[in-house]
Amino acid sequence: MRSFEDLVKQFGIFFTREHSFLKAPESLYEPCNYFLSLGGKRVRPVLCLMASELFGEIHEDAWHAAAGIELFHNFTLIHDDIMDKAPLRRGKTTLHERNGLTAGILCGDVISIHAYASIARIKNALPEVLSLFNKTAIAVCEGQQLDMDYEHRDDISISEYLHMIMLKTSVLIACSLKTGAILGGASPEEAQRLYDFGLHIGMAFQLKDDYLDAFGIEAQTGKQQGGDIRANKKTYLLLKAIESGSAGQQQEIRRLMETNDPGKVNTMLDIFRETGAEQACLGIISEYSEKAFSGLAGLSVPAERKVPLHQLALYLLEREK
Amino acid sequence: MRSFEDLVKQFGIFFTREHSFLKAPESLYEPCNYFLSLGGKRVRPVLCLMASELFGEIHEDAWHAAAGIELFHNFTLIHDDIMDKAPLRRGKTTLHERNGLTAGILCGDVISIHAYASIARIKNALPEVLSLFNKTAIAVCEGQQLDMDYEHRDDISISEYLHMIMLKTSVLIACSLKTGAILGGASPEEAQRLYDFGLHIGMAFQLKDDYLDAFGIEAQTGKQQGGDIRANKKTYLLLKAIESGSAGQQQEIRRLMETNDPGKVNTMLDIFRETGAEQACLGIISEYSEKAFSGLAGLSVPAERKVPLHQLALYLLEREK
Repeated sequence: MRSFEDLVKQFGIFFTREHSFLKAPESLYEPCNYFLSLGGKRVRPVLCLMASELFGEIHEDAWHAAAGIELFHNFTLIHDDIMDKAPLRRGKTTLHERNGLTAGILCGDVISIHAYASIARIKNALPEVLSLFNKTAIAVCEGQQLDMDYEHRDDISISEYLHMIMLKTSVLIACSLKTGAILGGASPEEAQRLYDFGLHIGMAFQLKDDYLDAFGIEAQTGKQQGGDIRANKKTYLLLKAIESGSAGQQQEIRRLMETNDPGKVNTMLDIFRETGAEQACLGIISEYSEKAFSGLAGLSVPAERKVPLHQLALYLLEREK
Repeated sequence: MRSFEDLVKQFGIFFTREHSFLKAPESLYEPCNYFLSLGGKRVRPVLCLMASELFGEIHEDAWHAAAGIELFHNFTLIHDDIMDKAPLRRGKTTLHERNGLTAGILCGDVISIHAYASIARIKNALPEVLSLFNKTAIAVCEGQQLDMDYEHRDDISISEYLHMIMLKTSVLIACSLKTGAILGGASPEEAQRLYDFGLHIGMAFQLKDDYLDAFGIEAQTGKQQGGDIRANKKTYLLLKAIESGSAGQQQEIRRLMETNDPGKVNTMLDIFRETGAEQACLGIISEYSEKAFSGLAGLSVPAERKVPLHQLALYLLEREK
């Protein structure tokens, strides 16, 4: 079995070889290559490959599926950046900022089709994998729509928020694992167990992201602390603070959301601490983590085969950046 | 065999039944339903069904493929309208004008995935159909990019223009026919012959569109005459007039392109006539038509089976609107 680092490296080589666009029109494919070269953690394709390796040698199909999932993920990032008016992605200029709106839309579109072209190269279980991929891709779009809708709403419940991040983030992670499992020859029950493991990991991962955005140390995360607070993003922390806060604290939160004072972030962090939102966030991350790990423990493959997946999950959930 | 009218009606029923979105979030699917209800000629799905019926009863797979192609076509229209900043589509408000940029991007995205979900329902020959569909979809994106690039270029050759409309329009029509043929049980040679028939029909269809935009009668087309001229679109007529015109005519064209005089359209039409661009356009439409019809004639199925396809091609190429 291969470690996370080995698989990231091997996937990178495969991905660059198979999905660097050398063809015309350059105005379309040069920005695509730019964006794909920004990298990222490659978590989804590696989860797909690891799930496959649980059941034996990694079949060529799993590499194509992993690449398709990574392409799809990049397509969603390109279009999300347009919708979020984001200037930066992974510390570099976003595609639409660099090349304009038309390129942003069209590069996203063509990368999504290339994702399908990669999936289409699967020789075994294509109908099953394609159908799961479609279901997942639709859910991701729905999640993004909800995320956009929530910007304009002031009455989001915590369960609505959790449903949104499940669609926007967790289902693709779950799909990566289940796809790898199917292509590795897992039984339907095992494949479903890996799907559920992915859902739980995905939830914990996204909530950890929210947590680190607020409480992470800039020197470790590489991002300015409190970006979500500055942007008034309705994260778990904010929703929980509103739910648990006293009338006075709720009023203070609403006041802070209408200002851009230099002290905004720190005051909000204090409220997150005082209302117990910080602890609640750490608590729900632990809950999802525990569900994930107990699901993985229940999988009927030899324990040593699970080591890389276990390590990757630990890395995702216990990271400080 | 079913006539064009019958198939349009039957496809409409099938499409509305299978692809009306009744689910949440409404902010995503209500605009999708709006756009899909605008209708259109349904040429591509009907060509798919007709190609299938050349070889026998229309299999359920062909209906799903036809719906997938129509969904894909609508996805491209939604995103193209954003890039073209178009206010109207089929006489109604475009999706992004009605619901904003985010909805424009995301509804297009989710409809493209639903296109794949419809294709994924095919039971026979899925890998072959999916691979053709992907190749085609990539070409359509490339064609759209070239179309966008050409707006900013003053040195487009006629062959570049023809290459662009082949990618942007013809390949999807060709794909519709070949997909229907494959699902109807055609031999590879017959399927390829229908693909070529579609390429030629597609070229003639797009060039006829250019021609009618300039020389069509408003009472018949329902569109303001000379829209392309007003927008300085580099159509075949304009490129041919520049290529064939005298130095004086070329200068007059360039002057007209910088004005918005009330007489702009009529003066440009005179130049299209005087330079022979009008006749050349009619000539090239005839050439592509003849290639299309001789290709259809060479297809080894009984002549009476070809009647609906022949009639639809005639309708597309000899229409005055």
